[in-house]
Amino acid sequence: MTEFEVIASYFNAGQQSRGDVILGQSDDCAIVRTTPQTHIAVTTDTMVAGVHFDEKVPPRALGHKLVAVNLSDLAAMGAEPAWLSLAITMPEVNTSWLEEFSAGLHELANYYNCQLIGGDTTRGPLTLTLTAQGLLPEDQLLTRRGANPGDWIYVSGTLGDAAAALAAQRGEISVCPVQQQQLEERLFYPTPRITLGQALRPIATSAIDISDGLAADLSHILKRSEVGARLQVNNLPYSNALNGNIAVEQQRHFALHGGDDYELCFTIPEASRGTLETALAHIGVDVTCVGQIEANGGLRLFDGDNELPSSIVGYQHFGVNL
Amino acid sequence: MTEFEVIASYFNAGQQSRGDVILGQSDDCAIVRTTPQTHIAVTTDTMVAGVHFDEKVPPRALGHKLVAVNLSDLAAMGAEPAWLSLAITMPEVNTSWLEEFSAGLHELANYYNCQLIGGDTTRGPLTLTLTAQGLLPEDQLLTRRGANPGDWIYVSGTLGDAAAALAAQRGEISVCPVQQQQLEERLFYPTPRITLGQALRPIATSAIDISDGLAADLSHILKRSEVGARLQVNNLPYSNALNGNIAVEQQRHFALHGGDDYELCFTIPEASRGTLETALAHIGVDVTCVGQIEANGGLRLFDGDNELPSSIVGYQHFGVNL
Repeated sequence: MTEFEVIASYFNAGQQSRGDVILGQSDDCAIVRTTPQTHIAVTTDTMVAGVHFDEKVPPRALGHKLVAVNLSDLAAMGAEPAWLSLAITMPEVNTSWLEEFSAGLHELANYYNCQLIGGDTTRGPLTLTLTAQGLLPEDQLLTRRGANPGDWIYVSGTLGDAAAALAAQRGEISVCPVQQQQLEERLFYPTPRITLGQALRPIATSAIDISDGLAADLSHILKRSEVGARLQVNNLPYSNALNGNIAVEQQRHFALHGGDDYELCFTIPEASRGTLETALAHIGVDVTCVGQIEANGGLRLFDGDNELPSSIVGYQHFGVNL
Repeated sequence: MTEFEVIASYFNAGQQSRGDVILGQSDDCAIVRTTPQTHIAVTTDTMVAGVHFDEKVPPRALGHKLVAVNLSDLAAMGAEPAWLSLAITMPEVNTSWLEEFSAGLHELANYYNCQLIGGDTTRGPLTLTLTAQGLLPEDQLLTRRGANPGDWIYVSGTLGDAAAALAAQRGEISVCPVQQQQLEERLFYPTPRITLGQALRPIATSAIDISDGLAADLSHILKRSEVGARLQVNNLPYSNALNGNIAVEQQRHFALHGGDDYELCFTIPEASRGTLETALAHIGVDVTCVGQIEANGGLRLFDGDNELPSSIVGYQHFGVNL
């Protein structure tokens, strides 16, 4: 076997087969079957060594995270994960790295019945690109652009943990080892909110996944929907690992600007709040109402009745999807 | 605009819109519409700076070639190009580079009515990954695995030009400036054989695109089809730029092992040779019969009636698609 065939062997093995994959990793292209009345959602994310991750990240976590960040984009559209294409550029063949990385990748992909149908292996600086595709009913489009004034703004899970984990690694905040481990678990093994996204399809007016911090991602919804929002920062949900262990301003900063949460932010009309409660009862994901959409453009932060200075709204942008 | 938004702006502009793209580059995912009775072909190729190309390659050629190598995979399956996802990793924002690169990319993509529906822009060592998707009728699958003993082996166009261009750049062969330019045109701006691939769908028993040299790529067909082949090397088609200008052995080496030709190699049953002639009359691509499939496994090279030593069959493998 050539070294490239060695690499490919790690990704050919260890995964389940979907019925709609006519031809997998063995020809010039993979061939997949389409389903009537079904749209396809397509997303691509790249992770670059030294930029998006360093040697502190276990390879298994890298494999998990590469799948998770892509599936999180599918979740935001309410799509059901189906097919993955992997482009992996590596400086050299490291079989123990490949074993761990592919195990992490297959573990999460298999959980969501998602099949790696092809890709490319090349030599060069470590760069990981995944294109994920998902299926959704053609009459249920969940995008960033449907939020209306009066809609309530929700987020899933808790915010700021991944950013806090990074800050702890850098020594910027001090947490105990158990908390550090809990925070790193959230940084290394984020959970794409696939089931929640599908449940939201008929209920939510807009949705986005929180990858760059709530302020930046909610602002994408506001811009695309041509509305504004009032956010109650005192309502932001934090994990036990964060709560009470670091300053409130620090928590708030991580939640608003930290990134890497991979929770969903979405908007629900007043009339659908009851339906949301019912839908959530079956899927075991907590959601929190954190504000309301307003006609007046822009994002305004409130702590109770006090509006916070606009400097806290500003954010740094970490990347742009095409 | 942030630097990533600057990058994205070059790819958002300058392209046409397909009717089946419901949502393009503006949300967590692109959304595309499926067509009944239609399969989707998916392929991914990566080009890494310093590995697959160097500073001698004009950025416009890079954009063209990135699309061409992916569309060539679609051509080998007889698929009609539809959607592209681009992952671009760059060390810094170079607007003149981006302008040229995106122009080359859009030029070829637009020619084939292929739309860039999304992707990711990241900072890091220059790496270009494209995932291309194409459409094909569900009852016409053209793969590597249908070749039968007695089928005739054809190749499109001419072979070895790209490898000769590289050899000339390295000073390994000597050609005049006009020839050098003709050869580099083939290296920098390969033509994906899209129309030929679609014409072959109902006629050919197998097909592959020639990216690693005819010997390696034909061997993939032989392996997948569980057959062998007799190749008449004296029938290999060469361009005017190659013919008579370099030694015959050198020509033959470039054609068999050079790579980067992006022509198609395919097999046609005896009974369909007439149909092939008719189909080709309308598409303006020359094809040449270069051998025949045999039951006995392995690839055998003949110069007239003389079998060449098996050492000439051996080849170096440059990469593996998953």
